[in-house]
Amino acid sequence: MTRKIALGAFLHPSGHHVAAWRHPQAASDAGINIRNYIRLAQLAEAAKFDLVFLADQIAVPSDNLDYVSHTTRATYFEPLTLISALAAATQHIGLVATVSTSFNSPYNMARYIASLDHISGGRAGWNLVTSGSALEGENFGLGDDYRLHANRYRQAAEFADVVRGLWDSFEDGAVPDDRAAGRYINEARVHALHHVGEHYRVKGPLSQPRSPQGQPVLVQAGSSPAGRDLAARSAELVFTAQPSLAQAQEFYADVKARATSYGRDPDSIRIMPGVFPVVGQTEAEAQEKFATLQDLITPEVGREYLSLHLGGIDLSGLSDHDPVPDIAVGERGHVSRPQLLLQKARSRNLTIRDLYLEIAGARGHWQIVGTAESIADQLEAYFTQNAADGFNVMPPSPTGLDDFVTLVVPELRRRGLMREDYDARTLRGHLGLAIPPNRYSATARQPERALA
Amino acid sequence: MTRKIALGAFLHPSGHHVAAWRHPQAASDAGINIRNYIRLAQLAEAAKFDLVFLADQIAVPSDNLDYVSHTTRATYFEPLTLISALAAATQHIGLVATVSTSFNSPYNMARYIASLDHISGGRAGWNLVTSGSALEGENFGLGDDYRLHANRYRQAAEFADVVRGLWDSFEDGAVPDDRAAGRYINEARVHALHHVGEHYRVKGPLSQPRSPQGQPVLVQAGSSPAGRDLAARSAELVFTAQPSLAQAQEFYADVKARATSYGRDPDSIRIMPGVFPVVGQTEAEAQEKFATLQDLITPEVGREYLSLHLGGIDLSGLSDHDPVPDIAVGERGHVSRPQLLLQKARSRNLTIRDLYLEIAGARGHWQIVGTAESIADQLEAYFTQNAADGFNVMPPSPTGLDDFVTLVVPELRRRGLMREDYDARTLRGHLGLAIPPNRYSATARQPERALA
Repeated sequence: MTRKIALGAFLHPSGHHVAAWRHPQAASDAGINIRNYIRLAQLAEAAKFDLVFLADQIAVPSDNLDYVSHTTRATYFEPLTLISALAAATQHIGLVATVSTSFNSPYNMARYIASLDHISGGRAGWNLVTSGSALEGENFGLGDDYRLHANRYRQAAEFADVVRGLWDSFEDGAVPDDRAAGRYINEARVHALHHVGEHYRVKGPLSQPRSPQGQPVLVQAGSSPAGRDLAARSAELVFTAQPSLAQAQEFYADVKARATSYGRDPDSIRIMPGVFPVVGQTEAEAQEKFATLQDLITPEVGREYLSLHLGGIDLSGLSDHDPVPDIAVGERGHVSRPQLLLQKARSRNLTIRDLYLEIAGARGHWQIVGTAESIADQLEAYFTQNAADGFNVMPPSPTGLDDFVTLVVPELRRRGLMREDYDARTLRGHLGLAIPPNRYSATARQPERALA
Repeated sequence: MTRKIALGAFLHPSGHHVAAWRHPQAASDAGINIRNYIRLAQLAEAAKFDLVFLADQIAVPSDNLDYVSHTTRATYFEPLTLISALAAATQHIGLVATVSTSFNSPYNMARYIASLDHISGGRAGWNLVTSGSALEGENFGLGDDYRLHANRYRQAAEFADVVRGLWDSFEDGAVPDDRAAGRYINEARVHALHHVGEHYRVKGPLSQPRSPQGQPVLVQAGSSPAGRDLAARSAELVFTAQPSLAQAQEFYADVKARATSYGRDPDSIRIMPGVFPVVGQTEAEAQEKFATLQDLITPEVGREYLSLHLGGIDLSGLSDHDPVPDIAVGERGHVSRPQLLLQKARSRNLTIRDLYLEIAGARGHWQIVGTAESIADQLEAYFTQNAADGFNVMPPSPTGLDDFVTLVVPELRRRGLMREDYDARTLRGHLGLAIPPNRYSATARQPERALA
C-alpha cells in the first residue's frame, strides 16, 4: 500500500474567508448551529477524511466592537463541547479540538480529552496551543506577563508532560473486573503521577482507564522556533501555515530534524499545512468564486483584520493605498505570523489594501484558486516533495467543503493519493501513528494499523 | 393543568449501589461506555423525564488503592464531554452536568454550559458544586486551605455571578445579520462584564449569543446552611439528600424562605431530593433485589465507604460490631452529610456494619424498597406535602432505571402526577421555569411554557 495524503477538515462557521458570513448560502447562526457542524463533519467522514479540526479563541476578537460587529467571528461554540457532540454523530472520523494551555489545568485537560477518546472509540486529538492575546488574558484575570513568549512555551511543555503522564495512569489490564473476588481494579497497575514542576503540582492518578488510542493524538500548531521545538518534542501531528513550497519544505525538514534530536523517529510526526482551496469546474469559475468573496470585504474589516494580524498595530493614520509600514514585532503575543506578513509586504511593495486582501481569506495560510486538477497538482507536489504529510483543508465558504469533496477528492483518489475507504476506526489508525507504550508497562500495544 | 412531579435520571455507571458493578448485568466498562449512557438517557427520555443528571469527582475516590480496587467508582467519563455527546443522541430531555467551581475559571464554565445550551437547543443545566476533598485539591496543586467551608461558598457565589453576567453578554436581537450593510452584530447590544471581585477578574463579553434558554438552568446541591443560602440566592433547581419526610419538609420550607428573603419568588426554585428506589412486582421481590445488592458489599468496602462519608475518620481499630464512634465534624470538606449520618447512628445505636449497610446504597439519600404502588405513595406524599417539587431518581443497579420506568412511571401517570408527553423542548420549559430577563434589556422574553 502506498502512503496516502492525510486530510483534515478545518471547520469554521460559514467558511474561513473573513466575509464568508455574507455569502448568500451562509446560515445566520452558523457558528452556534449544531446541524451545520454535524453536516460538515458527516460530509468529511463520507469523503474518508482523517479528521475534523476545530480552532478556538477565548474572547471576542477585538476591543473594537465596531469591527466585531462586521464579522461573525464573535460567535461560535466552545470546541470541547462541540467535538463531543460531533463524536456522537460520526463513526470513523478523527476529532481534534484546540484548547489552550494558558487558561486550563492539566488535570482537567487530561480528563476532557481522555473522555473524548473513550466517547469516540479512539478518535480524539488535542491541538495544544498557547494563548498570546491580551483580550483572552483579561477574561481570566491574567496580567500582561502571561503572554511572554518563552514563558508560555516552557509552561506548555510542562503542561503536555503532565497530561501525558496522567493518560498513562492506568496500564493495559488494570481493570480485570473480577466480580467473584470483588476486585474491579488491579491497583498494582494504577499509578499516581506525583508531578512537582515549575508551573504545576499534580498528584493523579487520572480516574479513567487507558483510552482506546493508548493516548489521544497530540497536535501542535506553533511555527516560531519555540513552537517548532515544542512540536518536535511532544506533537504527533503539526498544523502549520506554509504558503509556499520552499517554506513548507524548510519547515518540514526542520521539525523532523528537531524531532530526531529529541530521539524521536521523524516519521512519528505528521505535518499538515493548512490549505485554503477555492475550487471551480474551470479556472475562470474558481477565480469568480474567489472574487465574489473578496468583494464582500469592507475596508474597515480589511484594515482591522490586518492590524490584528500584525500584532495590533495602529493603521488609522494611513490610507488603503499607503505601503505597509515598517514595524518591529514585539515579544508578547504571536511572533511568527506577523513576521511572515511583513516580509511579504516588503518584498513585493504591497499597499495596506493589497495585504489585507491577501490575508482576509486564508489568514497567511496557503491559498489556492483553481480547478480540481491544478489543486491536486499542487497538493501532490507538497506531498511528494517533502513539504507535507497531509493538509488541513480550510473551506473558504459555506459550500467550500462540498466543492473540495465533490471535485478535488475524486481527483486525489484517481491518483492513488487518498484512501478509498477507512481501514481503521481510530485517529491513530487513520494516520498510521503507533500506539505509545505506557510508561509503566514493559510492553507496548501493537498499532492498529501501520502505514506501509 | 395540574402541576406534575419533575423527574431526573441521576445516571451512575452500573447503578448507585456501591456493589452494583458486581451485579450480573453490569457492563465491565460501564463508566466509560457511551452506549450504556446513551441507552439510559434515551430510556429516561422515552419515559418523559425532565432531565438526566451527572455527578462528578475529580480524583480517584481514595488514597487507599486497595479500597479503590474494589469499586468501579474510580473510572468514569468527565461530565461535560459526556453530556455533550448525550445532547447529540437525544431530542427533548434536559441535560445537567456537575462541574466544580473550585478547579475551573468562570469564563471557561460560562462557555462550556452556554455552548451545551446551543448544542442541545436549550436543554442545558449546570450543577454548581464546590469541592471539599483533599484528593481533588492535590490534582490542582491546591493547598489544604482551599477546602475551608466559608471560603468555598463565598467564592462559588462570586463564580456564579460572573457566569450569569457572561451569559447576558448578548442581548436578544444582538445578531441582526444585516448582510447588505455588512453588519453581523449590533454592538450596542453586546456587553463586556468588567467584573472585578474578591476572587475573579473577568472582562468579557462571552463570545456566544444569548442561549436558547436565555440562561442555562443553574442547579445547586449543597445542604449545609451556606449551601442552602447559595441555593436560595442563585439556584433554580436544588438537588438534595432528604431521607425523611419531616427533614425534607424542613429543607423545602427553609430554602424557599431564604429565597424569599433574597427577593425571589419561592416558586422560581424547584427542589428535587434524591431517591434510591428498589422496585419489585411484589414487596418480597423488591426486598430480594435489595438483599442481592447488599450481599455483594464486602466488609472492607463498607468500612472504607463509611469512613469516607464521615469525613475520612479512621475506623481501623474498631470491629464491624462496635458502635459508630462519637466524632466531631471538622471545618474542612463536606459538613452536612457526616452530621446527618452521625445523628442517625446515635439515635438508633447503630454498629459500624449497620451504618455502612444503610449508606452503601443510597449514600444518605432517601431509599425506598417496595412495589410501584408503595413507592408512588411515598413520592406523592413528598410532592403533595411540601417536601419536594420532584425527584432525582438514583437507579440502584444496571436495570434500576428500567424498573422505575416500567413499573413506577405508569403508576405516577395513572395518578395524574407525571406528564404523558413533552409539551416543551427546553429544560426550562419542562420545569416551568421562566426565562430570566437579560440584565441589559428593558423587556424579558416570554417563558416557553408556564406551569399552571
